[in-house]
Amino acid sequence: MAHSHKSNPSLQVTADHQIKMAEAPIEQPGYGEVLLHIKCTGICGSDIHFWKSGRIGPLIVESDCILGHEASGVVLKLGEGVKDLAVGDRVAVEPGMPCDNCWLCREGRYNLCEDVKFSGVWPHHGTLQRFKVHAAKWLHKIPDDVSFAEGALLEPLSVVLHGIRRAGLTLGRGAVICGAGPIGLIALLSSRASGAHPLVITDLEPNRLAFAKKLVPECETYQVQRDLSSEDNAKKIRKLFGESEYGCPETVLECTGVESSIVTAAFAVRRGGTVMVIGVGRPVVNNIPFMHMSLGEINLKFINRYTDTWPAGIAAVKGKLMDLKPLVSHVFALEKAVDAMHICADLSQGSIKVQIVDEVDINPEDVE
Amino acid sequence: MAHSHKSNPSLQVTADHQIKMAEAPIEQPGYGEVLLHIKCTGICGSDIHFWKSGRIGPLIVESDCILGHEASGVVLKLGEGVKDLAVGDRVAVEPGMPCDNCWLCREGRYNLCEDVKFSGVWPHHGTLQRFKVHAAKWLHKIPDDVSFAEGALLEPLSVVLHGIRRAGLTLGRGAVICGAGPIGLIALLSSRASGAHPLVITDLEPNRLAFAKKLVPECETYQVQRDLSSEDNAKKIRKLFGESEYGCPETVLECTGVESSIVTAAFAVRRGGTVMVIGVGRPVVNNIPFMHMSLGEINLKFINRYTDTWPAGIAAVKGKLMDLKPLVSHVFALEKAVDAMHICADLSQGSIKVQIVDEVDINPEDVE
Amino acid sequence: MAHSHKSNPSLQVTADHQIKMAEAPIEQPGYGEVLLHIKCTGICGSDIHFWKSGRIGPLIVESDCILGHEASGVVLKLGEGVKDLAVGDRVAVEPGMPCDNCWLCREGRYNLCEDVKFSGVWPHHGTLQRFKVHAAKWLHKIPDDVSFAEGALLEPLSVVLHGIRRAGLTLGRGAVICGAGPIGLIALLSSRASGAHPLVITDLEPNRLAFAKKLVPECETYQVQRDLSSEDNAKKIRKLFGESEYGCPETVLECTGVESSIVTAAFAVRRGGTVMVIGVGRPVVNNIPFMHMSLGEINLKFINRYTDTWPAGIAAVKGKLMDLKPLVSHVFALEKAVDAMHICADLSQGSIKVQIVDEVDINPEDVE
Amino acid sequence: MAHSHKSNPSLQVTADHQIKMAEAPIEQPGYGEVLLHIKCTGICGSDIHFWKSGRIGPLIVESDCILGHEASGVVLKLGEGVKDLAVGDRVAVEPGMPCDNCWLCREGRYNLCEDVKFSGVWPHHGTLQRFKVHAAKWLHKIPDDVSFAEGALLEPLSVVLHGIRRAGLTLGRGAVICGAGPIGLIALLSSRASGAHPLVITDLEPNRLAFAKKLVPECETYQVQRDLSSEDNAKKIRKLFGESEYGCPETVLECTGVESSIVTAAFAVRRGGTVMVIGVGRPVVNNIPFMHMSLGEINLKFINRYTDTWPAGIAAVKGKLMDLKPLVSHVFALEKAVDAMHICADLSQGSIKVQIVDEVDINPEDVE
Repeated sequence: MAHSHKSNPSLQVTADHQIKMAEAPIEQPGYGEVLLHIKCTGICGSDIHFWKSGRIGPLIVESDCILGHEASGVVLKLGEGVKDLAVGDRVAVEPGMPCDNCWLCREGRYNLCEDVKFSGVWPHHGTLQRFKVHAAKWLHKIPDDVSFAEGALLEPLSVVLHGIRRAGLTLGRGAVICGAGPIGLIALLSSRASGAHPLVITDLEPNRLAFAKKLVPECETYQVQRDLSSEDNAKKIRKLFGESEYGCPETVLECTGVESSIVTAAFAVRRGGTVMVIGVGRPVVNNIPFMHMSLGEINLKFINRYTDTWPAGIAAVKGKLMDLKPLVSHVFALEKAVDAMHICADLSQGSIKVQIVDEVDINPEDVE
Repeated sequence: MAHSHKSNPSLQVTADHQIKMAEAPIEQPGYGEVLLHIKCTGICGSDIHFWKSGRIGPLIVESDCILGHEASGVVLKLGEGVKDLAVGDRVAVEPGMPCDNCWLCREGRYNLCEDVKFSGVWPHHGTLQRFKVHAAKWLHKIPDDVSFAEGALLEPLSVVLHGIRRAGLTLGRGAVICGAGPIGLIALLSSRASGAHPLVITDLEPNRLAFAKKLVPECETYQVQRDLSSEDNAKKIRKLFGESEYGCPETVLECTGVESSIVTAAFAVRRGGTVMVIGVGRPVVNNIPFMHMSLGEINLKFINRYTDTWPAGIAAVKGKLMDLKPLVSHVFALEKAVDAMHICADLSQGSIKVQIVDEVDINPEDVE
Repeated sequence: MAHSHKSNPSLQVTADHQIKMAEAPIEQPGYGEVLLHIKCTGICGSDIHFWKSGRIGPLIVESDCILGHEASGVVLKLGEGVKDLAVGDRVAVEPGMPCDNCWLCREGRYNLCEDVKFSGVWPHHGTLQRFKVHAAKWLHKIPDDVSFAEGALLEPLSVVLHGIRRAGLTLGRGAVICGAGPIGLIALLSSRASGAHPLVITDLEPNRLAFAKKLVPECETYQVQRDLSSEDNAKKIRKLFGESEYGCPETVLECTGVESSIVTAAFAVRRGGTVMVIGVGRPVVNNIPFMHMSLGEINLKFINRYTDTWPAGIAAVKGKLMDLKPLVSHVFALEKAVDAMHICADLSQGSIKVQIVDEVDINPEDVE
Repeated sequence: MAHSHKSNPSLQVTADHQIKMAEAPIEQPGYGEVLLHIKCTGICGSDIHFWKSGRIGPLIVESDCILGHEASGVVLKLGEGVKDLAVGDRVAVEPGMPCDNCWLCREGRYNLCEDVKFSGVWPHHGTLQRFKVHAAKWLHKIPDDVSFAEGALLEPLSVVLHGIRRAGLTLGRGAVICGAGPIGLIALLSSRASGAHPLVITDLEPNRLAFAKKLVPECETYQVQRDLSSEDNAKKIRKLFGESEYGCPETVLECTGVESSIVTAAFAVRRGGTVMVIGVGRPVVNNIPFMHMSLGEINLKFINRYTDTWPAGIAAVKGKLMDLKPLVSHVFALEKAVDAMHICADLSQGSIKVQIVDEVDINPEDVE
């Protein structure tokens, strides 16, 4: 193997909106931490956003920062006090490390912790490097029959699991998923695995819908029409559920963050139902149909990341409740991470999930 | 008494946005129905709205319609099949009569029934008349120590009860009430009776806030400043709850329906909290801070009327958990209902709850 | 076909604990009702119970009563006022007809209505007859690709759907099903379709467990050992979930009603979890480990039938989320219903679900 | 003042079921800890239990252990890393210090943590001493207008707050409290402050009921009759709520832990209601009416201590939602703690809440 295990190549975003490969220092694991060999990282829309816009809401890239937060790897070295992991363990990375001390952490809503250290969000380096130190507490062992690619996909799956838990899908009740991007597709798989039916997924692009249909043949697809109002698109979606208000979807999982789609969601959901906003978009959204939502007692819920989702995600994959592997459309070696980012950012490439893998063999014994 | 019990004066709104007193026919109670002598009706903002605008959302006044839906009265005559009421019973009127047949009725969400016959919403005549036929099932006996004025106030109390049940106030957790109009004031009383603390109520008008403070001395008041942004008003409200995010209100009961207030609510509520939209306002609302709500997992909930609230409201009044009587600022005789409507519509009058009463004695034996 | 459509053979239970075939009158559908040709009825443990014990709790067989409540059929004739059904429609029967008037009906908990008319519970005749009059409101159209056998199985599926909704299964969280009888097996299918994992099903009989494993290969099975205490059986079940308290099942669906199994359930569920008692058994149960349940905040929940489950059940079957057909182990013609009851009552026969079908062709035009 | 601040008298329970006063070492606060001067500790039934029985369920007194967990005090000295407290702060003690690391802690159910260090439960010394070291994180500042006596009562209030949150009391809905001991009385106050109505409290002793009535004049009392069955006592309780099932209590807060009372609770609650077991009693309870609970879908819930209740308790007291002070029936100086325990254990004394106070003035500057 050409690469030395002493080298730590990384993909970094800069304060002036560039991305670059750069050699990063190899840190030593402190108390409760481990050193990981990152085997696989998926690229997320937010990575592209940090690159192109330099920020997401209040989170701003102020200096060079290693990106990446959808990751899996192998434990190379244990810091002091680590009991539940061993060298060689294959793990999925839960990228947010909350403070464990604030009221939100105490109440089990650690995803809302205001002092979270989130991998790949400045100033916290992410997983797009060969070696990363991470708190053992926020690593989850994956069984042998779950691949590193799947391990990395547990992060976007976690977003969806958190969303559907809060939305409350139930067996035999209908759902709509707005958006057939990676999150929408995972939402489709998870809705199916949760027993929601009928299922409709919407998107502007017929290619994405065709892919969704192949992924979950029992779903129906709806191509959003740009020249129709949100309300009229909603009417057409509702027709797919039959003629009655009762039959209409109890839940809409909004995975685009786009205003017109949010409004469509509010009109598509049945009276008394829930619109779950999974896709984060603009700071402010207009044209929310309050009168309609009042008359129908439609809940509008939001999520921020996840709590306690990795074990459930691992169980779902291991239990063959869903197959995430088809979502990986492109794979690049770590050294080619810049190319991967470009493919991902270029919508004409039709990528779904781009992953960056590191096939280099690291012998834990070589790690001093 | 000057008036004959054979006369049925009523206040009607017309399709061309007028109000008028007019003699109405006295109906006979059918199966499951009773004839009521309406003793008291409160005027609601929606009555003014039907008069001035001719509609509320999809509900349109297409021809003369007797207004009124906050009412109490006395049973004068029983239709066939009525078992649980007797002539002479004092009752509060639940004004909506749902279809009892659709899925929403079956699921206990009869407030969302699309075939509801709601008193005072065209084409269903309301309670601003001397005699009204109503389904026995939707009447609630009130005890002797609950006055007709209080009986009529059970309707706006029901709106609030439904809202706080869905919002989930709990003992010792903070709440904000936006708006010190009748609904806001009842929300304040109900929040206090539910144990929410600290309590802050907001309004633009210092007079209304002073009234609120007299009603619930343990609350704090905040005068909304027109020249500040919604977010800055929210910051000032949050300061009243102390310095920590934890201390901030878990629930905001939005009782104005005004966009700037809704946005303030979204910024005032603590992470993980709930904004409950009780005030119905415009069809569409802009400037909803989605990014902020995503990051904080803030639920946005809506209500439409109420289900199963009268018995709880009666218990709350009878159990001395709240005193609704101070809310009645003006009382008019039925024949002066037009004057009552004008007082209510003229904001400079500072009315809180205007009620119309009918002191005429009706001898049930005279009712053929 | 030998039988005249004017004959209405029925299976009746008598006050002196006998069963018999008897000719029953053919009723005419009243307002809101339809006349059905019952095509299929499954036999339930409660039917056997009414036969052998003459009662279930407060429900007592006081005179001849036609049994049967798991049924599907064809609409033969419409009573007045029926709008949503047509002659020839294939329907599943929701057997309980609640009063639509009490507070429990109003609150959407019509399953708890104290005036329900439940098919096959004295004095309300059931579906084990050729012709039955039923309220249109409590019939659910089934699509062409759902068979009458599956239509009849929607009733026990409804019990399970109601149980898992109240228990709250979620994707990737573990569950135990106690008992591999018909309800337990449907609970297994439904848990799998809801995404629960890992799944363990328990029973005393290895044959039943082998059948369960064939039905849902991803589950694990545990043979309850008679010579072990409930607590020790629970320990062995917990081991199947791994070594940690975290990994233990969040939910146990207790489908036997047997005391030792209930106690095992309480010890098997993880801290903070829920034991859902689906199986109804004895009036009084002893040995409930209160201290253990207090320390672990274990919820003990009960169900009584179902609300709003047929549409979800139909969607689950039509959406291929589960295949109920393998559960039918024996099929008898209506005329052989007594034999069917005997097979069902004889545990040595190893029947799972015994169904009684009526293949006679009825021409709706012949029904006067 | 006679006592030196260098002396640390304490009340200890021994492995051989004795209690004694003994001088204890004064510990130094470590990282994140503070040294407290304990000003007030209330005696709890569990303290008496540890003394008389040597154990509560799995918790066993294996050697000398300082009792006490209902406490308030003053901060004398800060360990390293303590930011949110200052010397001189008046605080209430949250006695359980969970591990902050296990899944239950992460999920916000830290009350279920299996590694909790609970003050006064062997081997963790409690608050019945002058000086105690406690984690700053588990101390809650109390405002000047909340006394040390009230501060100590926040612990039993926390038990009740946790119980009523999980039970879900709402404004104007009925509740029964079984047992008029300290927990029952606080449950009564808290139910009243939460707006539950009508309220009935039960006990065997008329004196205790008279006290309850004085505390909350709007409640009704029911003297449990020993010669009646649990079901018949329940019938009499239900009559206090009127004649209808609807009017019956939605929630029963069971605060005795006694089997007959639990069974009464199950029969008293209305269909669809909840029995919340707050009182911990025997390991195993018999005669639970499963059939009745199935038919009525009655939830049986349990609690173990509390999570996130001190701030709400402080708000409730400060907001004048309840007055806890009348519950203190006896006050003893720390040196007389053995006498206090004897009064508490002697039921004929009719004590309600016995508190032990330490009026000695400690100058923080004298604490090295």
